[in-house]
Amino acid sequence: MDVVGIGNALVDVLSHADDATLDKLNLVKGTMHLVSQEQAENLYKGIGPATEMSGGSAANTIAGIASFGGRAAYIGKVANDQLGAVFSHDMKSQGITFNTQPHEGGIATGCCLVLVTPDGERTMNTFLGASNALAAHDIDANLIQSAQYIYLEGYLFDPPAAKEAFFAAAEMARNSRTRVALTLSDLFCVGRHRDDFERLIRTHVDVLFANEQELIAQYQAPDLQTAITAARGSADILAVTRSEKGAVIITKDETIEVAAQKVKKVVDTTGAGDLFASGFLYGLTQGMDLAECGRLGTVAAAEIISHLGARPQQQLARLAA
Amino acid sequence: MDVVGIGNALVDVLSHADDATLDKLNLVKGTMHLVSQEQAENLYKGIGPATEMSGGSAANTIAGIASFGGRAAYIGKVANDQLGAVFSHDMKSQGITFNTQPHEGGIATGCCLVLVTPDGERTMNTFLGASNALAAHDIDANLIQSAQYIYLEGYLFDPPAAKEAFFAAAEMARNSRTRVALTLSDLFCVGRHRDDFERLIRTHVDVLFANEQELIAQYQAPDLQTAITAARGSADILAVTRSEKGAVIITKDETIEVAAQKVKKVVDTTGAGDLFASGFLYGLTQGMDLAECGRLGTVAAAEIISHLGARPQQQLARLAA
Repeated sequence: MDVVGIGNALVDVLSHADDATLDKLNLVKGTMHLVSQEQAENLYKGIGPATEMSGGSAANTIAGIASFGGRAAYIGKVANDQLGAVFSHDMKSQGITFNTQPHEGGIATGCCLVLVTPDGERTMNTFLGASNALAAHDIDANLIQSAQYIYLEGYLFDPPAAKEAFFAAAEMARNSRTRVALTLSDLFCVGRHRDDFERLIRTHVDVLFANEQELIAQYQAPDLQTAITAARGSADILAVTRSEKGAVIITKDETIEVAAQKVKKVVDTTGAGDLFASGFLYGLTQGMDLAECGRLGTVAAAEIISHLGARPQQQLARLAA
Repeated sequence: MDVVGIGNALVDVLSHADDATLDKLNLVKGTMHLVSQEQAENLYKGIGPATEMSGGSAANTIAGIASFGGRAAYIGKVANDQLGAVFSHDMKSQGITFNTQPHEGGIATGCCLVLVTPDGERTMNTFLGASNALAAHDIDANLIQSAQYIYLEGYLFDPPAAKEAFFAAAEMARNSRTRVALTLSDLFCVGRHRDDFERLIRTHVDVLFANEQELIAQYQAPDLQTAITAARGSADILAVTRSEKGAVIITKDETIEVAAQKVKKVVDTTGAGDLFASGFLYGLTQGMDLAECGRLGTVAAAEIISHLGARPQQQLARLAA
């Protein structure tokens, strides 16, 4: 196995909205809010026609790795309902190993209401639902230990049992030659879990993904350069995504700038960071150099922002060539 | 009310596939097959990652009419399940009146597995599910009689009880000043119901929609001109869609050619006929002349084939201007 992803298994409910609607709903553009089932239902009533598509940050990354041709697996919790079946189908139909037992407690599969504004930016409202029920016993040690990398999403720190599962997986990885990759996920997510992230990065993380805002928040720095100086060496490899400015890859000794790919029209940025991680991790599993890993990341990100939704619609293996 | 649509309430499951996959699955490109729940499940296992989006032929047309700014209602049967809730939300969030009681018999909301080939053509496999349960008692006489038009999809002839509902609605319409529009829906659908369609057209239909193939099959003609000659006058207005050749509108005395709109890239033809009907019917309800009704039809069709799925992603009212 190349990469095993662990995350909140969610189905995205994608809808177009204008800035005035965001204001009215008290939403901060570009961020992710956790909402209760009731809040999600109320928001859903307030939004226009939607498209349903499998999502979940780490799940998007894993789908991207499979699309590059990588051998990938996923651990995450859906319910035994229609949207759970959709999520499961979409993973398995890409050849992804996905064997986590669905939750049977009557809570629905988690969903993320994504409001896409005309500028292509996305604002997310997540009802964790069944994904909340992921626990340490769902982590398959054999799977983790057979993998080159595990990939953990910061969002998974929100459900308490999942956080335990997360540390369990990181421990299992340490006991084999499996490397650990982490994404900080979201600015507000960093706000909620900064200290836990800090401990995990110091003790377990080999590859850290973050965007500029998240890195600055994690290191409580006044600007990106200061954050990078603080972060350098905390993980072997730090990959910072910078939207249209591309990405910068930082190791103990190196700083590698990666240009963004040209995109005709940014339709929906949902999944841009997730898919950058797909390309970067796929490159690492294939032993490519860091610049090439970064390039694959930007190729995947460019594909995903060119259409609605956070799962690739073209074979990334073909685009990468 | 401008238009009340009656049809099979379906959620589309849209997936990209190549021609070889269609051959392997014994599917005839561009047509609609009815499948059992078991067949649908097997097909679903065989297709790649998918996008879920509200569909159903008449429902797509009604969504288009609402997007033009028309006052629209829909009658169709979903189940009390997650995809039924999706369908219902997507109608109501556009301001469409949709009050049909969901089916409670344990059968799932109907779905249509749509395989989209690289040429943009779509091949459909419909599991009718709960839409099968639509019956005459679901037809709201007040709603029908308050409308300028009712719009019936030929597909509705497949479930026996729905066919009764269909005739009941046409009778109610005749008893008020409500005009009746019908679409022949699909080549194979015409094959199954030619004689019933013929009787309905002769006795109840004011506006008939068909594509070339369907009209030729309905009138068992050797070519389009012969079919048009046979069909002329059977309904007050006949609108024949011709893909990239546009459309031709036929009345007792007139033949009006309508050019297709230019489209940068045909992504997915799902819903092209449905949305042509949106524009055309909206124009009729606004008292526009037939050439302008046809133009609105081509504007809506052009929008829908430019992206995945059969529901408009832009306000058609804006595009029409």
